[in-house]
Amino acid sequence: MSTDSIDRLLAAIEETPLVDHHVHGALTDDVARASLEELLTESDRPIPPWMTQFDSQVGFAIRRWCAPLLDLAPHAGADAYFDRRSELGTQEVTSRLLKSAGIGHFLIETGYRGEQIHGLAGMESISGAKVSEVVRLEAVAESLAGEGVSAADFADAYIARLAVVTQNAVGVKSIIAYRLGFDFAPERPSRDEVAKAAASWLRLVTAGYSLRISDPVLLRFLLWSGVDRGLPIQLHTGYGDPDLRLDRCDPLLLVPWIKLIEPYMVDVLLLHCYPFHRHAGYLAQVFPNVYFDVGLGINYTGVQSVQLIKESMELAPFSKILFSSDAWGPPELHYLGSRLWREGMKKVLGAWVRDGDWSEQDAIRIVQMVGRDNAERVYTLGGNSESRTA
Amino acid sequence: MSTDSIDRLLAAIEETPLVDHHVHGALTDDVARASLEELLTESDRPIPPWMTQFDSQVGFAIRRWCAPLLDLAPHAGADAYFDRRSELGTQEVTSRLLKSAGIGHFLIETGYRGEQIHGLAGMESISGAKVSEVVRLEAVAESLAGEGVSAADFADAYIARLAVVTQNAVGVKSIIAYRLGFDFAPERPSRDEVAKAAASWLRLVTAGYSLRISDPVLLRFLLWSGVDRGLPIQLHTGYGDPDLRLDRCDPLLLVPWIKLIEPYMVDVLLLHCYPFHRHAGYLAQVFPNVYFDVGLGINYTGVQSVQLIKESMELAPFSKILFSSDAWGPPELHYLGSRLWREGMKKVLGAWVRDGDWSEQDAIRIVQMVGRDNAERVYTLGGNSESRTA
Amino acid sequence: MSTDSIDRLLAAIEETPLVDHHVHGALTDDVARASLEELLTESDRPIPPWMTQFDSQVGFAIRRWCAPLLDLAPHAGADAYFDRRSELGTQEVTSRLLKSAGIGHFLIETGYRGEQIHGLAGMESISGAKVSEVVRLEAVAESLAGEGVSAADFADAYIARLAVVTQNAVGVKSIIAYRLGFDFAPERPSRDEVAKAAASWLRLVTAGYSLRISDPVLLRFLLWSGVDRGLPIQLHTGYGDPDLRLDRCDPLLLVPWIKLIEPYMVDVLLLHCYPFHRHAGYLAQVFPNVYFDVGLGINYTGVQSVQLIKESMELAPFSKILFSSDAWGPPELHYLGSRLWREGMKKVLGAWVRDGDWSEQDAIRIVQMVGRDNAERVYTLGGNSESRTA
Repeated sequence: MSTDSIDRLLAAIEETPLVDHHVHGALTDDVARASLEELLTESDRPIPPWMTQFDSQVGFAIRRWCAPLLDLAPHAGADAYFDRRSELGTQEVTSRLLKSAGIGHFLIETGYRGEQIHGLAGMESISGAKVSEVVRLEAVAESLAGEGVSAADFADAYIARLAVVTQNAVGVKSIIAYRLGFDFAPERPSRDEVAKAAASWLRLVTAGYSLRISDPVLLRFLLWSGVDRGLPIQLHTGYGDPDLRLDRCDPLLLVPWIKLIEPYMVDVLLLHCYPFHRHAGYLAQVFPNVYFDVGLGINYTGVQSVQLIKESMELAPFSKILFSSDAWGPPELHYLGSRLWREGMKKVLGAWVRDGDWSEQDAIRIVQMVGRDNAERVYTLGGNSESRTA
Repeated sequence: MSTDSIDRLLAAIEETPLVDHHVHGALTDDVARASLEELLTESDRPIPPWMTQFDSQVGFAIRRWCAPLLDLAPHAGADAYFDRRSELGTQEVTSRLLKSAGIGHFLIETGYRGEQIHGLAGMESISGAKVSEVVRLEAVAESLAGEGVSAADFADAYIARLAVVTQNAVGVKSIIAYRLGFDFAPERPSRDEVAKAAASWLRLVTAGYSLRISDPVLLRFLLWSGVDRGLPIQLHTGYGDPDLRLDRCDPLLLVPWIKLIEPYMVDVLLLHCYPFHRHAGYLAQVFPNVYFDVGLGINYTGVQSVQLIKESMELAPFSKILFSSDAWGPPELHYLGSRLWREGMKKVLGAWVRDGDWSEQDAIRIVQMVGRDNAERVYTLGGNSESRTA
Repeated sequence: MSTDSIDRLLAAIEETPLVDHHVHGALTDDVARASLEELLTESDRPIPPWMTQFDSQVGFAIRRWCAPLLDLAPHAGADAYFDRRSELGTQEVTSRLLKSAGIGHFLIETGYRGEQIHGLAGMESISGAKVSEVVRLEAVAESLAGEGVSAADFADAYIARLAVVTQNAVGVKSIIAYRLGFDFAPERPSRDEVAKAAASWLRLVTAGYSLRISDPVLLRFLLWSGVDRGLPIQLHTGYGDPDLRLDRCDPLLLVPWIKLIEPYMVDVLLLHCYPFHRHAGYLAQVFPNVYFDVGLGINYTGVQSVQLIKESMELAPFSKILFSSDAWGPPELHYLGSRLWREGMKKVLGAWVRDGDWSEQDAIRIVQMVGRDNAERVYTLGGNSESRTA
């Protein structure tokens, strides 16, 4: 073992095919400059005329890392980048960026604005990677409501439908963080409560209001139905668009619910977690069924994701940390998720190995665990993970 | 463009005249050693006899950076520093430190213990920089009470007085964080509520109690009057003296109010924010009218402000981050605000450029935006900002 | 003074005998591999079969730093490490690790599972260091209950017993964070309330339930009795096992209580504090009687403790920061507490001195203050601290 070189580590970081355990499809069609910029922020407000979203960490990271894949110099200007992107066309840009991401397996959550993005088959075909599905619990309920389910039938119909639509899924996802926050009553709601809440909701739907489900009882029912289904449960946690109340998305607020579901032996995957990733690391240490990632935050903090990655490697055992991009839409986000994670791991683990704090062999093993093996184990993906013995 | 050197970046960081968008006057008179130390902490308790406040990050930063401006070696001892400071006299020390700060424009908040510090004219004369005024909303109300306004007249009198005293101001400032915290009822209080609350408060004032305004209804009325006035609103956020309840000064608690005032198109500037600066960065990303700085925290964390500066450059678009010192009193604090920010930016952006993550040209542009241009745009200061196109 | 070398600083960091101001005994007996792993996490759940707790920052730190003290190469595998540990036997391993820690004085909290670990005499004998006792307030009450105290006598008996058992103690410790959280009613409970709460608790004890004290009124009574006793009060703060609600262990929630006890002139020592150490630093700046450490978190974040150490040196005056390991059980934790703190201080202060931000002489002084002198002053240990004048 050379103590002077970290070449083997750098190669492992670069070459390990990742499992992106929470991601969405890439856009199918061209977008205008303004729309592209609006997809590069979690804000749902228009970009003000006196600024460009390219002047942000994620914008700088796109110009640094994606520009060369479109045959431009690193740090090409935002206008030049957008022009080149339009010239090549969505199909070519998407193909280049997705293939360059080095993803072995995308676990794709299909429940958000699916008409604008590639589905499972499209993502598989354009990326060359394996794909599996993660089903959004709320979307299943909303589609039932759209079909005219009755309040009395809702609970049974939901359970039956969930079983059907998750037949080939590897996990489910809850966005209770967005709709309610984590300070909810942790207990399973009763059948009567659910029927009553469903009646109120479906009355509004029938009256022409949005399908959007936001009743606390119903959201808790969906979550518990997810527990009963037995697949790993992904929970949006922390940072997201202004719909959520960020202070109510702190994963520490989930503890009462986590304790209640411990006997069910279902894995809970806290997604993103910024700026509460240290809280997530604590939960991953003390609860055997809790995992987390710092996706989304990595993309939006750009070069500063190095610090985020470091902070994600504190309390949690390394078997409890996963990789994701949470990309939706612009394929730049799919590529950057992988690229910034690899760059960050090179800087963080590279320094630890160079200083003698970690061995190179251990560092390589942890890269493979976090980037691939942990997800293969949790979601039973049937990969060929290497040995995990220290 | 040289890829080996960051000389142009270092020069830009050193030479850009800054807009200190939230600052107070420097002391007019000499202070004793004990008083000086008490002005170097946010504590309002006496310094215990077994310690010196010079043994802190801000104390070390003063000895490192201010001592040479007083003709001492860097890291001169605290006693030697104080002696030399006394020998030169307040006028000379203040002049040296303020002129060395490289501030182009001070936006001075005048509402706190104004009798001990230079006013606008004094600051302009001793620093050679431009000065503009920021008016503290609570101070205007308290001066009305001191003049004997009646409860029935209070609301109208306040609005009229605010219009007069802000005629030449560039912004207003609220200290509702100190007096109430951010978990307040976000709605505009009714005229009746205000009159009733004013009656209670003014009855106490008449009975000889302090003018200090702390009634929740009145504080909310002042804040909404600030919104109506239309100038940018600065809000003390996070870290401050023991008067405040720090856990209630988390800017995430402001979200309901921020959403209510969005239609008014008024800019909200979250000041300081430590240790909630990541929360502020999130708000600055998702709400077009929210800005923030990490002043105050920079001074008090000394050399560790490098990390604070890095953490301030995560989610927020670069057009939403500003520079301030929040200095009050000792001119060391005015100088250090600028000096530590420049040193921190050199370390942070310098590393990013050297590693190839940012271009030098971009880094220079961001220095100018954060240090000057963003403030000139928000406060309409009429500066000659350079182009902001990527 | 050489400006090119930091050799004197490195020597001071390595050679200063530390006061470990909050620690417990080392295990007296051999432990099986599974038990050892369970002692290397704050989780109280069994380690799942698909992971090893050695694959964590603390596990890597043990293999890096403890392996050489057991005659193995750094980074020896977990199996090889455990085999060698068993081969040498607990007595030899404990002796080597404790003696290598360079602790001058252990302040040992004796209230937790004392039958499995060395007491004061055992720790003194096996480590060669001085030892002093810190008494856990809750343990004193529980032992009274075990002896059959009556509810009417409880308050007086507790005060009397506390006086006796703390006769030679240097401090007391509260675990109200675990049992209740910090959002408690801060006032001293009345005698009547205490008697009533004691009656309920003792009725359960008599009925055969656990001695475990968890009634809010009683916990507050113990804490106030600790204040009356006048010794420094240690408070478990932040991170710990899943018994606690981490979001309710934020030290900012203690402010109302801290303000109430200020007149009593009793020192409050916030232990661990992760991930709320920045909040603790704020409290240490603004309240003269508040101190803190980042023990426990240092061990569990391994090489990442460098960042934790940096973050602990922000707002707090350096006279308010202490060193602790919070080790309990495996002597690896006693050694690592010291080793990782020294390695972290070398990296953090070393960089500051090399960059010219701190003088080497100041850095040495701060190492001695944080590692030893502050504890000697707070607990009146009668050490020979060097001068603290800047």
